[in-house]
Amino acid sequence: MSDKKAILVIGAGDATGGAIAKRFAREGYIACVTRRSADKLEPLVQEIRAAGGEAHGFGSDARKEDEMVSLIEHIESQIAPIEVAVFNIGANVRFGITETTARVYFKVWEMACFAGFLMGRETAKRMLPRGRGTILFTGATASLRGRDGFAAFAGAKHGLRALAQSMARELWPQGIHVAHPIIDGAIDTDFIRSNFPERYALKKQDGIVSPEAIADAYWAIHQQPRNAWTHETELRPWLESW
Amino acid sequence: MSDKKAILVIGAGDATGGAIAKRFAREGYIACVTRRSADKLEPLVQEIRAAGGEAHGFGSDARKEDEMVSLIEHIESQIAPIEVAVFNIGANVRFGITETTARVYFKVWEMACFAGFLMGRETAKRMLPRGRGTILFTGATASLRGRDGFAAFAGAKHGLRALAQSMARELWPQGIHVAHPIIDGAIDTDFIRSNFPERYALKKQDGIVSPEAIADAYWAIHQQPRNAWTHETELRPWLESW
Amino acid sequence: MSDKKAILVIGAGDATGGAIAKRFAREGYIACVTRRSADKLEPLVQEIRAAGGEAHGFGSDARKEDEMVSLIEHIESQIAPIEVAVFNIGANVRFGITETTARVYFKVWEMACFAGFLMGRETAKRMLPRGRGTILFTGATASLRGRDGFAAFAGAKHGLRALAQSMARELWPQGIHVAHPIIDGAIDTDFIRSNFPERYALKKQDGIVSPEAIADAYWAIHQQPRNAWTHETELRPWLESW
Amino acid sequence: MSDKKAILVIGAGDATGGAIAKRFAREGYIACVTRRSADKLEPLVQEIRAAGGEAHGFGSDARKEDEMVSLIEHIESQIAPIEVAVFNIGANVRFGITETTARVYFKVWEMACFAGFLMGRETAKRMLPRGRGTILFTGATASLRGRDGFAAFAGAKHGLRALAQSMARELWPQGIHVAHPIIDGAIDTDFIRSNFPERYALKKQDGIVSPEAIADAYWAIHQQPRNAWTHETELRPWLESW
Repeated sequence: MSDKKAILVIGAGDATGGAIAKRFAREGYIACVTRRSADKLEPLVQEIRAAGGEAHGFGSDARKEDEMVSLIEHIESQIAPIEVAVFNIGANVRFGITETTARVYFKVWEMACFAGFLMGRETAKRMLPRGRGTILFTGATASLRGRDGFAAFAGAKHGLRALAQSMARELWPQGIHVAHPIIDGAIDTDFIRSNFPERYALKKQDGIVSPEAIADAYWAIHQQPRNAWTHETELRPWLESW
Repeated sequence: MSDKKAILVIGAGDATGGAIAKRFAREGYIACVTRRSADKLEPLVQEIRAAGGEAHGFGSDARKEDEMVSLIEHIESQIAPIEVAVFNIGANVRFGITETTARVYFKVWEMACFAGFLMGRETAKRMLPRGRGTILFTGATASLRGRDGFAAFAGAKHGLRALAQSMARELWPQGIHVAHPIIDGAIDTDFIRSNFPERYALKKQDGIVSPEAIADAYWAIHQQPRNAWTHETELRPWLESW
Repeated sequence: MSDKKAILVIGAGDATGGAIAKRFAREGYIACVTRRSADKLEPLVQEIRAAGGEAHGFGSDARKEDEMVSLIEHIESQIAPIEVAVFNIGANVRFGITETTARVYFKVWEMACFAGFLMGRETAKRMLPRGRGTILFTGATASLRGRDGFAAFAGAKHGLRALAQSMARELWPQGIHVAHPIIDGAIDTDFIRSNFPERYALKKQDGIVSPEAIADAYWAIHQQPRNAWTHETELRPWLESW
Repeated sequence: MSDKKAILVIGAGDATGGAIAKRFAREGYIACVTRRSADKLEPLVQEIRAAGGEAHGFGSDARKEDEMVSLIEHIESQIAPIEVAVFNIGANVRFGITETTARVYFKVWEMACFAGFLMGRETAKRMLPRGRGTILFTGATASLRGRDGFAAFAGAKHGLRALAQSMARELWPQGIHVAHPIIDGAIDTDFIRSNFPERYALKKQDGIVSPEAIADAYWAIHQQPRNAWTHETELRPWLESW
């Protein structure tokens, strides 16, 4: 097992998480991918294997501390050391402030921020003794500013950004590269296709972000020499207004 | 009851919340102050009354939706319309990422962010039909950046900032002034005196922020004409390094 | 002359500079106001005098080092110590990048940034031995971000912001309060009335910033106790989208 | 000449500009490098040629509009279309505000900002009809905040950032990728070795940024597909405190 290394992708249910897993698998990483129900991960796992890679799908509720702990314990003891961890759960909802229920406000935070904390802390624990590793938290426009209707989502994404920045300041000098790439634009996912068809139509002009480009950017960050690390960066389609 | 107006201060347990309550009481507002246990609020309530003001202390757990709802219902129906609401609960803890328990991470968010959401939403509901009101969320250095040891606290404060900004963008055009003043420095409170005595010693040179100055700033924000509203501002001692 | 104190307003040609001068004159400050040609300042000077204040108008090219030096020397030796200095010159032009001449790019910087440096440095020299004073640089939306057509204007305003921040970090601990209030919205000036009539029409709904509100904010900043100074703040009409 | 393409590096006098030129030359770009005196560029030009690349050195004062115009005219007509332009002139000086002469303040801006405007505008003019190209402006910590002693340098770098952002917002939708990578840390250059030897000693632990890593990052930005462009990113050694 000595040379093996794994990438953990929490939230591999959308095209982005899948593209990241495939990109790293192509480079020899064992892709450990999660979403709430494992069976929906099968196509991704099969695709990676068909391309000659190694992949494992896990049904795991990222919001549950015990599930996160045992998932990581399992990977580390049974599969390979986690060299790269990616937190990719979004929870993009929009409600005016008076229509935002306490339940929604909490759930969005739990999924898009608290679960990131659990993943970050648990993988940091494993990486610290090894003095190396990369932890990536996926950011969004809402990581940078609040907006009408985004109290819940922007709140969670802001919290995740604070987590990434606090972890980077603590862990970089210990050899762990924590980064927070911000995707500032619609991504080519089923969610956008279904919910924002006008936005999705921009795909013909490269007006929405491709998951493959995100995956390439994540790979590039992981490859950076430690004399030139990136913490925050942004990816945005050329046609995006910002 | 027609001319009466109340200020609600959630988190009046420290010197800051108290100073704000006194400042507005002096201007004729009925001070409705809360902290978890009502009896500790007695000295503040008595002080306001002794100065000729009106004040009511409430023991209320700001993290509980039903308590927040009934508190505000009680004030609005029994005391006076809430013209100003101030969220002033902090939860300044510092732990390295691997020492941050899920419980701490959650509690800090629940106190310093989720409770702010509850107050903000519930007071907005009351203010919207009246087309006016001021909602103030107290920010801190950790609202702006993460730092080694501050994953939990900065996460909560970032989330609160996103809430304030989202609410401002939604509610300003409806006449409600939502603001997020950032106190970037130690405040003259018991917490600082006990925990950071070296910091507190700077008081002699005006090196820590006085609660009265914060209260004046909050009053000034509330007084702004709507053609020149402030959303974010900062208060910092002259000797602070930033 | 011992008790007298002056406010210097560089760029008092528009309503904002005038309102600031009047506000401080009302509080007993001797208003020393400048613009390129002195005679256009007469109405302002007369208005202040008619209200019982003291005012002096100076024709002075703020971009010329020798003129700035001798202006300040004159005020300090003949009128009163400069207790407050306000830099209020804008240069709001909009050109696409390929239409921006080197001359325009330079002139905008010279007026809106370099002249600010001259005023800041020269007044700091006078205030430092006294260990007190307030220096205010007026910011705009373009101080915070560039935008299509704003390479020149945003460049100058960004430079002014860097000046204000660098001076604040150096001079605050020496007792000089340097601040950078940002006016994020149209101001009720002739420039807006003539050039942006649709914008100006919002005045009826308080949709543009009143110079008097800016003047009040500047006065409030100058009055802050040194344990709670503001460096950056923002003023914006309630209807402004941001 | 149809397939040839050039990279223009303004300010190739230091290790960073040289590494960028070499990186792109390796990929087949004709390196056109400038600094004030051409003869000092000979070693770089020779090194690129020895490695099988094509390179041209130009002595050119980047602050002079006519020199910038004729340089670009010469390259476009005699050598190859400029596909990539890099502005890499710094002017890192430190003076307290009262010691900053008008001459220094102006010179720093002229070198580190105005020259960037000239390069940006002139290369944009050439790229616009072709609907493609990459323009990179090198940023620094001082691009983001002012600091005691940095009124001049931060002023220029802030202005350059505003330029980059304004140009990006105007030119991205026309196919031109304008980016502003920020190098937040000391770079392995002669300047740092001579002036900050303690800083330079961190090189052994990868504590200063290598020019080659910067060059790789610039290449990566140029390679991004237009559905995922980066405008601002940051590079920083793992040991840097920020």
